[in-house]
Formats: sequence, structure tokens, C-alpha cells
Amino acid sequence: MKAAVVGGGVIGGGWAARFLLNGWEVAVFDPDPEAERKIGAVLANARRSLPALYDRALPAEGTLRFCASLAEAVDSADWVQESVPERIELKHRTLAEIQAAVPEHAVIGSSTSGFTPSQLQDGATRPAQLLVCHPFNPVYLLPLVEVVPSPANGEDIRARCSDLLAGIGMKPLVVRKEIDAHIADRLLEAVWREALWLVRDGIATTEEIDDAIRFGFGLRWAQMGLFETYRMAGGEAGMRHFIGQFGPALKWPWTKLTDVPELTDELVDRIAAQSDAQSGRHSIRELEAIRDDNLVAILRALKTNAWGAGETLSRHEASLAAPHGANGSTLTVDRQVPQSWTDYNGHMNEAHYLEVFAQASDRFMELIGADADYIAGGHSYFTVETHLRHLGEVMAGERIKVATQVVAGDGKKLHLFHQLTGENGEPAATGEHLLLHVDLETRRSSPPGRRISESLLHYLGEHSRLPKSEGIGRFVGQRP
Amino acid sequence: MKAAVVGGGVIGGGWAARFLLNGWEVAVFDPDPEAERKIGAVLANARRSLPALYDRALPAEGTLRFCASLAEAVDSADWVQESVPERIELKHRTLAEIQAAVPEHAVIGSSTSGFTPSQLQDGATRPAQLLVCHPFNPVYLLPLVEVVPSPANGEDIRARCSDLLAGIGMKPLVVRKEIDAHIADRLLEAVWREALWLVRDGIATTEEIDDAIRFGFGLRWAQMGLFETYRMAGGEAGMRHFIGQFGPALKWPWTKLTDVPELTDELVDRIAAQSDAQSGRHSIRELEAIRDDNLVAILRALKTNAWGAGETLSRHEASLAAPHGANGSTLTVDRQVPQSWTDYNGHMNEAHYLEVFAQASDRFMELIGADADYIAGGHSYFTVETHLRHLGEVMAGERIKVATQVVAGDGKKLHLFHQLTGENGEPAATGEHLLLHVDLETRRSSPPGRRISESLLHYLGEHSRLPKSEGIGRFVGQRP
Repeated sequence: MKAAVVGGGVIGGGWAARFLLNGWEVAVFDPDPEAERKIGAVLANARRSLPALYDRALPAEGTLRFCASLAEAVDSADWVQESVPERIELKHRTLAEIQAAVPEHAVIGSSTSGFTPSQLQDGATRPAQLLVCHPFNPVYLLPLVEVVPSPANGEDIRARCSDLLAGIGMKPLVVRKEIDAHIADRLLEAVWREALWLVRDGIATTEEIDDAIRFGFGLRWAQMGLFETYRMAGGEAGMRHFIGQFGPALKWPWTKLTDVPELTDELVDRIAAQSDAQSGRHSIRELEAIRDDNLVAILRALKTNAWGAGETLSRHEASLAAPHGANGSTLTVDRQVPQSWTDYNGHMNEAHYLEVFAQASDRFMELIGADADYIAGGHSYFTVETHLRHLGEVMAGERIKVATQVVAGDGKKLHLFHQLTGENGEPAATGEHLLLHVDLETRRSSPPGRRISESLLHYLGEHSRLPKSEGIGRFVGQRP
Repeated sequence: MKAAVVGGGVIGGGWAARFLLNGWEVAVFDPDPEAERKIGAVLANARRSLPALYDRALPAEGTLRFCASLAEAVDSADWVQESVPERIELKHRTLAEIQAAVPEHAVIGSSTSGFTPSQLQDGATRPAQLLVCHPFNPVYLLPLVEVVPSPANGEDIRARCSDLLAGIGMKPLVVRKEIDAHIADRLLEAVWREALWLVRDGIATTEEIDDAIRFGFGLRWAQMGLFETYRMAGGEAGMRHFIGQFGPALKWPWTKLTDVPELTDELVDRIAAQSDAQSGRHSIRELEAIRDDNLVAILRALKTNAWGAGETLSRHEASLAAPHGANGSTLTVDRQVPQSWTDYNGHMNEAHYLEVFAQASDRFMELIGADADYIAGGHSYFTVETHLRHLGEVMAGERIKVATQVVAGDGKKLHLFHQLTGENGEPAATGEHLLLHVDLETRRSSPPGRRISESLLHYLGEHSRLPKSEGIGRFVGQRP
């Protein structure tokens, strides 16, 4: 398939990247002499991130070509995406040029955020071919495209347009009535206006406003929107009840600057019926569980990246007591199993066993002094070999613990044995690991510092008094 | 520490859960005879999800007590959280009762979304003790609390309040000026008004509005807010440039319903300076990389939960070509390494090696017919033993492949050997796995279906012609 991107920049570049990384041939036309550099930068970002979304390889990347004329770019295109600046006369001129050269079967999508398709189609040769396809930045990662047809667009182009967008991983939202700025930007604009007032009146800084979003409702909106979230607030009493409660607030003085639609019975009924159609297949309890699982997964993802709400979480986690053992044993993990760690077999997935054992090894490294500061100083341990045995099952929500034993710790080698117990106190798995002390500069093995060697000797002494597990030194499939 | 929760319901219950799961003693007063059941339901949700955020155990849960009188609940509290309905006379009466019985050192936080602290303090015995602490639902998961003091609140209580909230994992945002509805709810209210118009005018349904949020800007707002996102849109030219571009749009006809602050030089300067203070330590390129890493991590998290934008991703992934081998070898994984898979050592973390090998085993199961339908029919394979060898390093962004070989496949046992190669074509790791065919009902081993046994025989025949790896049958620490 061939796409033509008319108008580069961040949006055009994002489209080019989506098409290319999904195997389309892409031709770009942009008179800006900097276009190639600008699109190159967007493409570099996209190559780094878009394929990382998938657990399969994307198709082989298409070829990218910069054209000297618009006609050359669009002349055999199956899709033309217009992303020129938001001036109606420029849009009209560009779209006319496109239509003069493009095949009749091609879809012409406009990235416009402000104009309606009827405005764009005004004076067009073949208005039926042209509609609004409004994406969101970064186009190569965010799935949403508002597809806005006018009455001039037939059923066939609407369907083909949606199919092609889904084929490059996007979520086409077909807007049922033309309106200035479509849907999402009207909502964004409403927030933007309110935010500008807050800054102007000295109520909040830009950072405080951003924090009010990303530590609160922004986390909700990554997975459920306004209405599904409020449906839960209404509880079992339902959406009608919730709107009834919320209604009076619309008349509060702090909303005096704006018109508010009157909450007639008809409007309340419509919202309630639409909400039933949208979310009625789930009970409120089910919705809450879905929401909570999503929030936990999102917050854990942000914790891995040490950003925003995930950074708050890290800081709090660091303040919690580290696991500690008794009777000479060394407890290195004491935690709960998240819902998102389970798999299609209904139990904790094998990869998370190793995640837990890796946490146990990290904690043991900390205990012997190979902590974050030590690693920042250019040394660490790399795992080179692992043996896992699964002896039982562990379920979501279960509290699990890991006890760690040093098997050997001479020179560069560190040989650890972890035992994971579930809530019933029975061993559910064991992990045997060989780690090598490495120089992070040369990426080669090297002897550890003296403090670490001494600390290891101490643990070796302690652990030598523990019974040796029959799980050590076994190969896969060895009979007990 | 002791908390008193006055007013149960979803918000009061969420506070009770946050305090309890962080080890506080909690006393609840709510005259509603259903309060115990309602708080119990919130607490059940919280127990399922809040501990799952952490890789350490939370402190031992505090005890929860329901009190017959308000005085009994607050009488030795360090923190009182008031969450009664939003009627000022009810708030005043309740706060007066609280102050009559509570110790002077206690913080009294009000969950009010609409009233200012000065309104609440009006007529209070000790106004200095009382301020707004406005949380977001679900209170046990979302970190944000808007802390709104009035001039009557001293520096000491502001600081103590923030410290205690951080101690239960929350993100206190101290609001610098009292205003109706604080910050976040003003933004939410703006969106709500616009959304009500869209539904009333038949432009969009509740579901379409929610989709316009959660497939687009909602994903951005889980990690960066409005201004930091727009800063990137401004590019290297900066925030001042961006506002200049955006400014005219504020005067477009579709904003005619609302007042808009005039974008004076002074306001533009203020926004640009605040944005520099907020985000200036990162270049635009760095911000883009942070944003993209967060979006990838969030989208992958939602994919695991098969929800919203993650479901779109799954559907697209299923349409991508499955890995396929050549020359009798069986390729089971072909993919890129996400940024979020790397660790403090700068390479792919060991747990993700097993994640990749688990994907390889899943794919091989699919190939022999043990696919999603087969599993839904009540049978599957469980991994019982694993041996991993790390032979090289793999970096973020690298394309990796796994070739799979059946070592043995007789009866209930399936013995697999995976070899992972990096972009240089060299083996980076091997995984040897013993799986058992199980009955998902009894959770015990059982013989596989005939089709699977036959398919396995076919692969055994194919793979017996491949050279046998020296990596098979080894124990941890065995010399080469």
C-alpha cells in the first residue's frame, strides 16, 4: 500500500512513521527545506517506541521518499494525508492540487483539528473522496483518529477508511455529526481555557495544574472516560441517580461563566440509556475491579519508569520496611502478587517467578553492599545461569516470601539459592542462580570490592548452618 | 497512628482503606446503618489492589472499629477525615462536633470538593486545625490529594499534613489560593459541561466521548499534564511560540460560549517562565523520550489487561504475521525489546528473558494445537522446570528471535529448548524447559489429546535432524 503525506512537521511525520512501520510505501511532500530533518526526528522516535508495543515483529518497514512536487507524491497513492497549517484557503488550495493528481480510489484524510469536512469539501472536484481524519500526538503511539465524514461521503469510503486505519493499529472513532473541532479538542479546549484562567489569576502554576491532572483523573482517563468513571460513582443506584446528584453542582456559582445545558428528564434519560448501552454488560463491582486492575498496571508501569505517580509510589515503597528474616535465614522478598501477574492458566505466570527471584537477588546484593551506589560506581553482578523448579501454584493476591541462601561466594562468582513460599507456608518454587561480578565499563567479570567479599563470607558462615536443599545442582528432567 | 473517618461511603471508605492498609488504627463514624457493609466493599477492593502496587509488603493492617458516636470515633485521633455530604450547614455542624472531642494536635481534613477552607472554618473553635484535603476516587489507588489551607492555617499544620499524607503513599498538592472547587474539579467540570452539550446536541454518545478521551489525550494525561504536553508541541521554539500559535484558536467561533482570558504579554511570559521552571531541566527530545517510554509502558500494561487502547493493540498484534522458521527450525519469537525491559545494568533484565521464552513456549503450544480454544476446553501445559543460560547481552530496541527445538515429547511431558539470538545473530541466551500437560479442573497432570501427540511427533521428527545443543541437560555452575 502507498501513502502520501502532504505537510510534514510533527503530525505529518507521525503519520509517515505509522504508515512506514506498518509496511506501507510513503511519499512525502513538504516545501519546507527542513522537512526531511524534522520527519527524520519523528521517525527516530517512532522506531524506538512503536515496535516496542508489540510482542511480534511489525512488517518490514516500507520505503520513504521525499518528492519535489505534490503531484509526484500523491500520483499513485492509496491514502493521502493532508497536514498543512490550519488556514482554510491553504487547505482548499492544497486539497485541489491533491485531487488533480491522485487516483480516484484513494482516501484523502485531513488532519485538521478545527475545520469540518463540509468546509474542506467546499469547491472540491470529488468531495466524496475527502474526509477528516484527525489524529493525536504522538501519532505513532496514540491510537485515536477522529474520522469525520460529511453527507457527501458514502458508506464505502467511511468503511474503507476505518479498515485501513485499524490496519495500521489505530482506533477510528467515526463522528456522527460534523462540528467545529470535532469531539476531543472541544474537551481539551474546555480544560485549556480553565487552566489559562487558573494561571492568570495566580491560583496555580503550570506545574501544579499538570500535577492535578497526572496524579489524579489523568490516571483514570488512560483507561475509562468521563461517563464510565461517573457510572461507578453512581454505584448500584445507576447513572440516573448520579446525574441527579451532580446536577445541582452545575448551578453553583463557580460555573457562572459558562452556559450549561438544562438537565431535562429527556437529557438525563438519554445519558442513562447511552451509559447502559456502553457499560451495562458489566456490574458496578466488575467495573471497579477492571478499573482497579488497570490503575495498578498503569501505576506499576510508571513505577518502572520512575515518573509521575510512579515516582510517588517508588518513594513510598522505599519507606516501607525491607524484608527481614529470623533464625539465621535471610528473607529477601515479602510481597503480594498483583492481578496482572496471572496468565491464562489462572496462576502467577512463570516469568514473574523469575521477576521475584531477581528481586530476591537484588535485595541480597543490597545486603552485601552491592547497592545502587555501588552500581553507580561502575560495578554490578550479572546473572549468567538460572534453574527454576515449580513445586506448587501461586494465585493473584497471595502474599509470597523468598528466603535466600548463599551456596558459594568465592571470587567473582556468587551462587544463590532462593525458596519461594506461598500463603500456605509450603514451597511453591525454587531458584538457583549463578551471578558474576562485572565491571560495567568493560562488561567483563572482575573481582568484587573487599567489603562485599567480607560480607559474603559472613552470610556464607550463617547459611552453612542451614540444611542444604535437595534442589541445588539439578538439571532439567532429572529424577528426584 | 490513629485516624477517624467521619462519613463512610465511597470516599470515606477509600480513606479508611488507605489508612488501615498503611498500618493505622481506624475508627469510623457514620449514622448510616449500611455504613459497615459499604466500607467493607471498598476495603475488599483496596485489599485486592493497593498492596499489588508495591514490591514490598505494606505494614501489618491496622484495626477497624465502627463507633456509635462521633465523639468516640475522634477522641484520640491523630487525623480526622470528614467526608459527609456537600451541604455547608451539615459540614459546620459535623466539624463543630469533631472539634468538641478531638485532641488539639490532630489534623482535621475535609474531603469537600466544593467548599473553601475559609467557608468551613467559619465559626470554628480552632480554625487552625482544619483544612481541605480533597482526594480522588478510588482514594486507595489514586495518589492525588488537594491540600487547601486558608490564612488561618499555620506553616506547621500544612507541613504535618503533607508529611502524613506522603506517609500513606499520597501526593499532596498544596493549593496556594483558596478557590471554589480547588483545581482538578474545575478542570473536570469544564470537560463535564462540554460533554453534556455534546450529548444533548446529539453530536456524540457517552461511549464515543469516553473513547475520545481514553484512546487519545487520556493516555497522555496519565503521565504528563496539559502544559508539559503542549511544551513538546511547541518544540525547540518553546512554550512562548506554542502559545502564540494556540492563541488565535481561543477566539474561534466554537469558543464563543465562554469567557477567555486575554493572552497579554504578561500572561504569556508567566506561562513560559512557569513551564521552564517545571520542565526546563529536560530538552524537548528528552521529554519526548520520557513521554514515549511512559506511553509504551502504559499501553503494554493495558494490553495485558485486554482493555481500552490495550485491546486495540491486541487486535492489531493478532493481525501481524506469526513468526515462522526456515530449514526445519521453528521460529517462535521475533520481536523488539521495549525500553521498559531494561534494568540498572543497562540491558534486558533477566525476568524478561523468561518472559520471551514463555512466549516461545506459548507459540510452540499453539503450533501443536494447544491454543486458546484447547485451553478454554480445560487442558493446558504448566512449566515445571527451567534452566537459563546467559551468553551475551541484549539492549533496548534490539530485534530478537527465538528458535525452538523439542527435546522430548512423550506422554504428559514436553521438553523444550529455546535459543535466543540478538541482532548480531549470535546466541544471547538459551532456555531449557520441562512442561507437563495438565487438566485445569483437577490441576494434575494428564495425557494430551491425540492431535497434539501426533503433532508433537511430527516436530520431534523434524527437530531430531537438527544438531543437539550442548546447552541441554546442564546444572547451574557446571563447567563447559
